[in-house]
Amino acid sequence: MSIQLYFNPLSQPARAVHAILVIGKIPHDLHNIDFMKQEQNTPEYKKISPSGNVPSIVDGDIALFESHTILKYLAKKFKLEKLYPSDIVEQARLDQYLDWHHTGTRNITLVARDFVFYPKFLGKPAPENKDERFKELEWYLTTFEEIFLGNGKHKHILGFDEPTIADLSAVCELVTLFMLNIDLAPHPHLHQYLKHMLSIPEVNQVHQPVFGFTQKFGENLRQEYIDLMK
Amino acid sequence: MSIQLYFNPLSQPARAVHAILVIGKIPHDLHNIDFMKQEQNTPEYKKISPSGNVPSIVDGDIALFESHTILKYLAKKFKLEKLYPSDIVEQARLDQYLDWHHTGTRNITLVARDFVFYPKFLGKPAPENKDERFKELEWYLTTFEEIFLGNGKHKHILGFDEPTIADLSAVCELVTLFMLNIDLAPHPHLHQYLKHMLSIPEVNQVHQPVFGFTQKFGENLRQEYIDLMK
Repeated sequence: MSIQLYFNPLSQPARAVHAILVIGKIPHDLHNIDFMKQEQNTPEYKKISPSGNVPSIVDGDIALFESHTILKYLAKKFKLEKLYPSDIVEQARLDQYLDWHHTGTRNITLVARDFVFYPKFLGKPAPENKDERFKELEWYLTTFEEIFLGNGKHKHILGFDEPTIADLSAVCELVTLFMLNIDLAPHPHLHQYLKHMLSIPEVNQVHQPVFGFTQKFGENLRQEYIDLMK
Repeated sequence: MSIQLYFNPLSQPARAVHAILVIGKIPHDLHNIDFMKQEQNTPEYKKISPSGNVPSIVDGDIALFESHTILKYLAKKFKLEKLYPSDIVEQARLDQYLDWHHTGTRNITLVARDFVFYPKFLGKPAPENKDERFKELEWYLTTFEEIFLGNGKHKHILGFDEPTIADLSAVCELVTLFMLNIDLAPHPHLHQYLKHMLSIPEVNQVHQPVFGFTQKFGENLRQEYIDLMK
């Protein structure tokens, strides 16, 4: 039976789940949830995802929301050991990143939402604490490089030999930096990591719609971003 | 070998880990990290918890940070099936709450930090968007009741028969509402849930230091909170 994925390609967590389905060669059907039509708030959809968010999946009589929950469930069910090992210590090592992500890397989207998406697409004024928020964001990027990329020592998060679900979640969030157009020069390890992760064909594939969006609506895109989107 | 827990009783996630150690009868030693002395930022401590946060644990040659990571690791290692079952579907059901918590229930602490702790203890002015932030917080509390307590149908999060690690994480966060002193009358299911969870002796025990703090520094505490702290 195929996994039913409810998603939107512009959603970072939804792309991460799309990526594991493609990488794991898990049979699936895609259902696009159109935010402009408020499809995430219909009573039918809320039976699957009560929080009204994407992604969510239906697997037979099981419905699940929250992307990290789904990534772990699929990796365990389909025994994708490289993406999420069954050893409890290795799971805990990866869980450290996955838990940190929610209030760490995820900040990229909150900053993009408040300073790019809301002002540009909804006409909502940007908050006044721009300097503070961008400074905080820099701190999170530096912390990501230091703790999880070992300041360039690690090719993948926390030094795993192959990409894991932590990397899938991280890269989908990190590409939102392109919409913010901030300078990656102070973050060479992050730049190298993005280049590597986006060279994985399946990861590149699930990003094509958001790259199209970024190239259409991103302003004065830096050459480094254009190169990374190839 | 005992688990070494680095914690502070005022930290919500640290209390959740303390609670599982007590409930699971897991041998452990407590190490208090004094924030006023900046003990969370020493190079020695950052070897254990590179993000400089509490809680963290050392179990032999394994060091872990992030409370949900630690809760799952301990439940799996010590086979505390009621707290976190080994079945992957049951794990996924609980993971949904645990993932939602980071940007859901955890808002209580962010609001308390910005509008109570920083102004009161560090003299930092409170943000100007008080109404917006408290309205958002009400939304999260309502969502918690609707989705995770089934609007009063569930005694524990997502209808598990016994308390799980999701409940341990949630209750430790929810008691921070006492410092905010907001009216629980619009949230009868939350009130009932807190009453039940705080009646569990081990949960009550790990809250004694924070209840002492709340009674000392909380202003004009509502009788409902004083009753819940008994």
